[in-house]
Amino acid sequence: MPVTDPHSLVRDMVDRARAGEVRAVARLISMIEDSVPNARVIDMAVSPLAGAARVVGLTGAPGVGKSTFTAALITALRTRGDRVGVLAVDPTSPFSGGALLGDRIRMQDHAKDKGVYIRSLATRGQLGGLSAATPLATRVLDAAGCRSVLIETVGVGQSEVDISVLADTTVVILAPGMGDSIQASKAGLMETGDIFVVNKADREGAATTRRELRAALARSARPQGSWQKPIVMTTATTGEGLSEVLGHLEAHAVNLEESGELELRRRNRMMREIEALAVAELHDRIFDPIDRKLERAVDRVMRGHADPHGAATALIEGL
Amino acid sequence: MPVTDPHSLVRDMVDRARAGEVRAVARLISMIEDSVPNARVIDMAVSPLAGAARVVGLTGAPGVGKSTFTAALITALRTRGDRVGVLAVDPTSPFSGGALLGDRIRMQDHAKDKGVYIRSLATRGQLGGLSAATPLATRVLDAAGCRSVLIETVGVGQSEVDISVLADTTVVILAPGMGDSIQASKAGLMETGDIFVVNKADREGAATTRRELRAALARSARPQGSWQKPIVMTTATTGEGLSEVLGHLEAHAVNLEESGELELRRRNRMMREIEALAVAELHDRIFDPIDRKLERAVDRVMRGHADPHGAATALIEGL
Repeated sequence: MPVTDPHSLVRDMVDRARAGEVRAVARLISMIEDSVPNARVIDMAVSPLAGAARVVGLTGAPGVGKSTFTAALITALRTRGDRVGVLAVDPTSPFSGGALLGDRIRMQDHAKDKGVYIRSLATRGQLGGLSAATPLATRVLDAAGCRSVLIETVGVGQSEVDISVLADTTVVILAPGMGDSIQASKAGLMETGDIFVVNKADREGAATTRRELRAALARSARPQGSWQKPIVMTTATTGEGLSEVLGHLEAHAVNLEESGELELRRRNRMMREIEALAVAELHDRIFDPIDRKLERAVDRVMRGHADPHGAATALIEGL
Repeated sequence: MPVTDPHSLVRDMVDRARAGEVRAVARLISMIEDSVPNARVIDMAVSPLAGAARVVGLTGAPGVGKSTFTAALITALRTRGDRVGVLAVDPTSPFSGGALLGDRIRMQDHAKDKGVYIRSLATRGQLGGLSAATPLATRVLDAAGCRSVLIETVGVGQSEVDISVLADTTVVILAPGMGDSIQASKAGLMETGDIFVVNKADREGAATTRRELRAALARSARPQGSWQKPIVMTTATTGEGLSEVLGHLEAHAVNLEESGELELRRRNRMMREIEALAVAELHDRIFDPIDRKLERAVDRVMRGHADPHGAATALIEGL
């Protein structure tokens, strides 16, 4: 029954996504969010087709104009004709998952552009704040022909650090009058960012923010090979400074490739993803309702036939 | 070489702990915190000897007099001659691990009492806030002859919920003037507690706190079989109300046993512990520096021989 075979269903959907069908992309990402077996089948289909996209992480505190900046960056990328994918991961909103394409108000300019895929992802409250579905959703967009995939996160707490393990290049966005947040974000943010943006550059205090940022970078950023972390002044509402950002993104891509850093980052990213998937699969297997492996392990311990550490080892070895 | 065999070393230490040697107990708990292989050997030795202790969780917001209450409860339990173990798990202090016995100032009355073991445990910042070492440390105290093991936690955020999966009976401690905290703690705290204590009952507002607590319990606590959750007024500094607490602890123990709830709670506790140990063991095995299982999985994916989901499955199956 080829119609109900999930593999052929997924392959068909992937073909349609590659042909530019926005709804097929949306459907694939929904399927990933829905179930782990779906995710497995989709990964088999899209992984061989992925690898060409550049993944750019965009992060910054609430209020810096992140969504407006993202919209302006999409416009800049679209003038070059590239198909663009956007994943909006908002750890502050557990209800953003399953949202429709083009659901973000500021992105509405692009909602009718068939070369742009925009999608919110739920975070499901895991440790670290970024959605477990993000890496595979990135591969779906990659396989669907997006040359650039932007991952936008709300930069609160841990998530600035997270974004750097999902992206090739991380752009940290700030705004005037947020000097406190530079200090509060500690060295982590300076290490994490590859490109720094002072958005709302038409506002009072923009030069001060740039100066403080430059000082913070000088203090805390360890030199990363030959890459000098640039600071770009932008006004996302007018598009001012966006072509400069584009130039730095291009330069960073070349630098990553030539220095071997791209390979390192992608290996690190893959390592974390596979580990997380293995933990998720362990969970599924020990809670399997038929085998009831974990319940049987508990029984053995409760009857005095094993100690908990020994039972855990036996569980792992019986997988 | 029997001297260097970890099993005989541990067995010797366990024998000394059972004979009442405080330092042997301290040493065993330090060994658990130090390394996973130690923990395995210790679990094999203590698990068959554990099971008799009643585990009582004590939780409450900072400022309610939790440590003073714990000290008063130790005094009350000691008048019955029971050996008492105390584990202080403080998620707000990552540096409390490895602290010596009797390190908590308010516990100093008991520091020279050989029938009382007091120990701080580090939380190592895991999700949930309670130390991974806590269940095994509880078994060490149990095997060392403690009839009661008290687990004291700072009741912030998630940890009230955690404590209920570590303990047979959970005591929630409040103090006058903390009506806001009752509301803020939501229904979870009302569900979690088996016995509620209004400490500092000599202070103004104690009756109001009791009334508010009673109302909150009436609203949110689902009936748990035949157990009526009592509210006890105490003044821990004078010992007032402690014998009443002791009576309710005794009554709850009988109720748990007769209703079958004790068995359910211990099964649930064991299930969570074995799952956590299995995840930890998975981590150790895939990061093994000789096998390099995870690195080899990454290699396969990077060369296009597998997709990440498939690589994770192969990793699990190759354990």
